Amino acid sequence: MAKIFLRKKISSRIADGHPWIFGNEIGDEDGAYEPGDIVDVFSSNGSFVGRGYINPASQIKVRLLTRNQQEEINDAFFLNRIQKAWKYRQKLGYVENCRLIFGEADELPALIIDKFNDYLVIQTLSLGMERWKDAIIKALEVTFNPKGIYERNDVPVRELEGMKQQKGFLSAPFDTNIIINENGLKFHVDIENGQKTGYFLDQQDNRRCIGQVVEGADVLEAFCYTGTFSMHAAKYGAKSVLGLDISDFAINTARRNAELNGFQDICKFENVNAFDVLKQWVKEGRRYDTVILDPPAFTKSRENIQKAVTGYKEINLRGMKLLKPGGFLVTASCTNLVPPELFLQIIEMAAKDARKTIRQVSWQTQAADHPILWNVPNTQYLKFLIVEVS
Amino acid sequence: MAKIFLRKKISSRIADGHPWIFGNEIGDEDGAYEPGDIVDVFSSNGSFVGRGYINPASQIKVRLLTRNQQEEINDAFFLNRIQKAWKYRQKLGYVENCRLIFGEADELPALIIDKFNDYLVIQTLSLGMERWKDAIIKALEVTFNPKGIYERNDVPVRELEGMKQQKGFLSAPFDTNIIINENGLKFHVDIENGQKTGYFLDQQDNRRCIGQVVEGADVLEAFCYTGTFSMHAAKYGAKSVLGLDISDFAINTARRNAELNGFQDICKFENVNAFDVLKQWVKEGRRYDTVILDPPAFTKSRENIQKAVTGYKEINLRGMKLLKPGGFLVTASCTNLVPPELFLQIIEMAAKDARKTIRQVSWQTQAADHPILWNVPNTQYLKFLIVEVS
Repeated sequence: MAKIFLRKKISSRIADGHPWIFGNEIGDEDGAYEPGDIVDVFSSNGSFVGRGYINPASQIKVRLLTRNQQEEINDAFFLNRIQKAWKYRQKLGYVENCRLIFGEADELPALIIDKFNDYLVIQTLSLGMERWKDAIIKALEVTFNPKGIYERNDVPVRELEGMKQQKGFLSAPFDTNIIINENGLKFHVDIENGQKTGYFLDQQDNRRCIGQVVEGADVLEAFCYTGTFSMHAAKYGAKSVLGLDISDFAINTARRNAELNGFQDICKFENVNAFDVLKQWVKEGRRYDTVILDPPAFTKSRENIQKAVTGYKEINLRGMKLLKPGGFLVTASCTNLVPPELFLQIIEMAAKDARKTIRQVSWQTQAADHPILWNVPNTQYLKFLIVEVS
Repeated sequence: MAKIFLRKKISSRIADGHPWIFGNEIGDEDGAYEPGDIVDVFSSNGSFVGRGYINPASQIKVRLLTRNQQEEINDAFFLNRIQKAWKYRQKLGYVENCRLIFGEADELPALIIDKFNDYLVIQTLSLGMERWKDAIIKALEVTFNPKGIYERNDVPVRELEGMKQQKGFLSAPFDTNIIINENGLKFHVDIENGQKTGYFLDQQDNRRCIGQVVEGADVLEAFCYTGTFSMHAAKYGAKSVLGLDISDFAINTARRNAELNGFQDICKFENVNAFDVLKQWVKEGRRYDTVILDPPAFTKSRENIQKAVTGYKEINLRGMKLLKPGGFLVTASCTNLVPPELFLQIIEMAAKDARKTIRQVSWQTQAADHPILWNVPNTQYLKFLIVEVS
């Protein structure tokens, strides 16, 4: 196995347990390797740092899989890690559906696995992880005996690793339109064509949280995707729910979800650009008791954070103006590029500009099947806030 | 009414809506007033800032009750504010028990009212609020027709306002030993002799939150007070629960609570100093699946923050060492002197010293019947964290 030596001054990130090693943090290399191979990483004075996979084509040249020199990287390693992760989810009660593997937080960098009842959807987002796909599939089969496994590797980040985007079956083919249960509701999930892995499990606890602010309310949800918050609003007693999304696919699925749950009279959906209509409806004097905003990331690069800030501020400002006095704004942000403090500042600025006073009701993050490592900041990405607006 | 003029340069705190005005922020005064009187506050150029009560004996000389010049401070004002606060709690589902008035967060600075089913416990912590006690009692009687109202003004902070400590009935006398329901459990509350108002409602949502990490577990709770977390652990399936507290009163009540809920075989309580025994039990090799730490504030003054930091670090370090690998630490801090970021740093330091790796499961604050105003930092005081410890 090739040996990789870090430069003399090791970054505190690596010392504190972060698994990423950037190309410019590496000094000498000893031995040959192919991209994706397992390598051993040492400090410049030869003490063992960790073992992981290497890809010279990636800015993140090495991702460590273990800090334990006795731990070999083989099929058994992946089986152990996956079963450990499953045990954690079971303990916490995320059994039927869960994010089974949350990359770095489960010591399996660049691997995402979502479990939707009897189906598993996987993403291998680095070359090194891609190489172990067979071992991962075997481990999943042994552990879950699933009805189907699907690969959703149609994500641009793979290209940074020199891999192509792809999606398809990793098991015998199956009907990729499935139905899942969440909080007593049913949802259509399109594993093949839905966003990301088909469904956003990270908000599953937060969706319950809106129960406090929707009873008897006229609710507006912008960026509703397949209507999961809308359906929860109806379940928790909303008088009416209007969901907005720019995608035909999303709105059609949302309507089918309303029918599936018998909420077609309460939940209506419109295929519109939320930015346009929120602005217009403020002018028209439309007012709601509760406004829910769970928008997409607005940016995917650090260079464009200002674009995201502007987007979040704009929609939250409109959302606040669309509320009756004493109404509730439920607002979220799903990109780790906007850290929690910045998100709160944006909401504060929006309130100032809207000349509103806000009072914090709830402030949460992703569900605990997406655990957070403080020394790996990108594991904390979801912000979920409820404020009373007067 | 006397007029108070702020100095030319107004602090951003006041401009941003914080209701406190310190003595050194005041310039000219126009007109006579008695301590506790209502005064109008203006900027140096004469524009209206707000209306509140004044006490020259207090460092916080004026506390604003309103920023609206049309709003008079009279009995109707207090009735309105209390009914508005009650409407908010009802909307969010805090009906049977709740913090009805959370001081500044309900625009009633220095007033605390807790509702325990048909009983109300009140604290008037400033001279200006004390003067309106009759109006407040009248408003409570009209709104709730309560079985009893009790005053828990036996708190040292009153002395900073030149008032004496006192407690007693504000209604016809009643049996101050009551029973409340929370999350399907029953708890003895001693309104007269319990800590603060007799019971800590601020953890009512967080107590439900431990359901994820106690099933089948051997649980240790240090600083258990009357055993409310312990009782929840038993309800959510803990195999055994051991609660520790240094107070005889607390341990006796905790045992009575266990009997009240039929958990006397699962929940045991010991009257010990947690600092001593945690240390000793680490040495003895005792290990638990889940450790709960909800200690008192450790300090009440800004000068002694280091003492609090040391205390929190010490018990969390011991708590982590008492866990089996993969166990859960449930840990809280209830003083606003230790802000959220500092608390997380303390836990991180404790983990480092204990040579443990931690993973965040939950990170919360107080229940939403204690709403938070971002511009009044002391309204955010409770930190509640669950981490997995390996």
